[in-house]
Amino acid sequence: MSSTPNDPRTPVTVLGLGAMGSALAGAFVRAGHPTTVWNRTPGKADALVERGAVRADTVADAVAASPLVIVCVLDYAAALEILEPAGPGLSGRVLVNLTSDTPERARSAAAWAAGHGIDYLDGAVMVPTPDIGTPGATLLYSGSRQAFETYEETLKVLGGQAAYLGADHGAAAVYDLALLGFFYSAIAGLVHAFALAGAEGVAAEKFVPFTDAIVGILPPLAAGWARDADRGVFPGDQDNIVMEAAGIAHIIEASVDRGLNTEVLDAVKGLADRTIAAGHGKAGFISVIEEMRKPSAKG
Amino acid sequence: MSSTPNDPRTPVTVLGLGAMGSALAGAFVRAGHPTTVWNRTPGKADALVERGAVRADTVADAVAASPLVIVCVLDYAAALEILEPAGPGLSGRVLVNLTSDTPERARSAAAWAAGHGIDYLDGAVMVPTPDIGTPGATLLYSGSRQAFETYEETLKVLGGQAAYLGADHGAAAVYDLALLGFFYSAIAGLVHAFALAGAEGVAAEKFVPFTDAIVGILPPLAAGWARDADRGVFPGDQDNIVMEAAGIAHIIEASVDRGLNTEVLDAVKGLADRTIAAGHGKAGFISVIEEMRKPSAKG
Ligand SMILES: NC(=O)c1ccc[n+]([C@@H]2O[C@H](COP(=O)([O-])OP(=O)(O)OC[C@H]3O[C@@H](n4cnc5c(N)ncnc54)[C@H](OP(=O)(O)O)[C@@H]3O)[C@@H](O)[C@H]2O)c1
Ligand SMILES: NC(=O)c1ccc[n+]([C@@H]2O[C@H](COP(=O)([O-])OP(=O)(O)OC[C@H]3O[C@@H](n4cnc5c(N)ncnc54)[C@H](OP(=O)(O)O)[C@@H]3O)[C@@H](O)[C@H]2O)c1
Repeated sequence: MSSTPNDPRTPVTVLGLGAMGSALAGAFVRAGHPTTVWNRTPGKADALVERGAVRADTVADAVAASPLVIVCVLDYAAALEILEPAGPGLSGRVLVNLTSDTPERARSAAAWAAGHGIDYLDGAVMVPTPDIGTPGATLLYSGSRQAFETYEETLKVLGGQAAYLGADHGAAAVYDLALLGFFYSAIAGLVHAFALAGAEGVAAEKFVPFTDAIVGILPPLAAGWARDADRGVFPGDQDNIVMEAAGIAHIIEASVDRGLNTEVLDAVKGLADRTIAAGHGKAGFISVIEEMRKPSAKG
Repeated sequence: MSSTPNDPRTPVTVLGLGAMGSALAGAFVRAGHPTTVWNRTPGKADALVERGAVRADTVADAVAASPLVIVCVLDYAAALEILEPAGPGLSGRVLVNLTSDTPERARSAAAWAAGHGIDYLDGAVMVPTPDIGTPGATLLYSGSRQAFETYEETLKVLGGQAAYLGADHGAAAVYDLALLGFFYSAIAGLVHAFALAGAEGVAAEKFVPFTDAIVGILPPLAAGWARDADRGVFPGDQDNIVMEAAGIAHIIEASVDRGLNTEVLDAVKGLADRTIAAGHGKAGFISVIEEMRKPSAKG
């Protein structure tokens, strides 16, 4: 390469220009990297081209333009549909797959990449698009340590918190899906909160300072529960699951009375009720992890 | 009263000494208030008595000791079981019910209190016990404005963020249950995250800095979604529900493969799938609020 890895002259290619791919490419353009872009629907490149990105007509052209190729599309089926024909052209380059999917698919993509002599790093984006390019943004990487170390500074253009999770290509996906499960459960709860407050005439914008207060209590609770989960000891002296099941029942009752959907909370209550039925009523909420570690009854 | 409301000499009574009632009484003791306590199981008062609280043998004695009476027990059925016999003795006093329950029960407790000439404030505690007595702790109040204003400074001993939500006695319970729904959905998701990461050998204590990063992205997202919810407009330019449903499906697939319970996430996916089926696949996640506003299919 004619440029050193930290060098803004390092050319990068971004395949996939949905909301996230466009944000990633935009961050590289902003940082001064020669940025080549490709998307199945070419019109999505227009705004980036206006800002200085180069549109490639084919995936092969896009890949040929840069030693570092990022792909970020809907899922791995879409990513492999794009990448497979370009396999030979990717040989000797670094491929960073920032598409979200399962650890199993990440590992099999790694096997495919190895077969083509591609230096493959799997990854995941843990922030919404407006945070891309900020020092606080977390992106996860796993797989080729050499690829990560070579391009670490370049990847930090996308988000300052670039975490390398080890040589197992599936590791980033494990963290990604575990974190996404937390995220989607939390935001479904947020939407329920807006709906329940709204049913009593409370505007969401008036309500959101209070949801922020709840957000504020989560990190210390999470730290304590993490300790408990690792030790397998669930003290109930400061909160107990009988009290919590009563509280969840109240939320469900009030929600049903207002015609709201309670399926998410019904599922949480199921975990709590089964924890109590198993004889752990005096344990803290984290004790539901034992029920979480059993397959769903139905489905 | 011989003492002004802000005066640490203002006597307070706390009925109910579970985890939360004990924390509330402890904060009053620490702040120098003469604190009378009562609990159905009297032994739970021991630690507080050692620190200077006075144990009352009966509810009537406890109520007679203070112009300000706080009750915090499992639910309103328990609270009324305690309070009803003491009704006449409560006449002319301020009763603050920090037990969590539905808005309907808060309103009917208020009607009962009015019938006994009790100045009644309903309330809710939005923090775990270790936060009680700190300036950042949020407690919600609604009902008698005069009671709130008279004892605002005394109540701030319990938590510096004392929010008065209006004269409707049900308002604190509405906020409480909406916030608790968010809280329990979020922490069920946190437990799932620990279980999924744990299934791949990642210790929860190693994982929790990443859950904290997810916590960090929630407030700005919540602010944007609150605006969208109030306007009823759900732009999908930065995140769309088709992409999100694909992500949730990946979490479920990886969780089922590892023998984990997915009922909470199945319910979230149901909301997303029905939103897509209703023709809103290009809308953002907050668009699931329309499905959240419909009753559950089953149950
Ligand atoms: N948006 C976020 O907030 C966010 C946050 C964290 C992670 N992510 C992850 O980032 C990835 C992309 O998400 P996004 O928000 O950018 O999604 P999006 O806006 O829906 O864009 C989807 C992208 O995938 C492409 N695509 C889909 N199927 C394809 C196929 N069969 N062949 C070729 N291209 C195909 C689309 O191309 P067309 O334009 O031609 O349809 C488009 O470029 C996902 O894995 C998502 O989980 C997103
Ligand atoms: N703990 C928290 O983190 C937390 C946070 C926010 C809000 N809250 C709310 O605070 C309230 C109390 O919770 P907690 O954590 O203190 O629960 P807890 O530790 O389980 O204590 C329950 C209390 O209720 C009493 N009780 C139950 N049934 C009774 C009855 N029939 N007659 C008389 N007393 C009865 C118990 O008396 P005995 O000791 O005699 O059994 C005990 O004092 C709940 O509404 C809860 O939602 C708790």
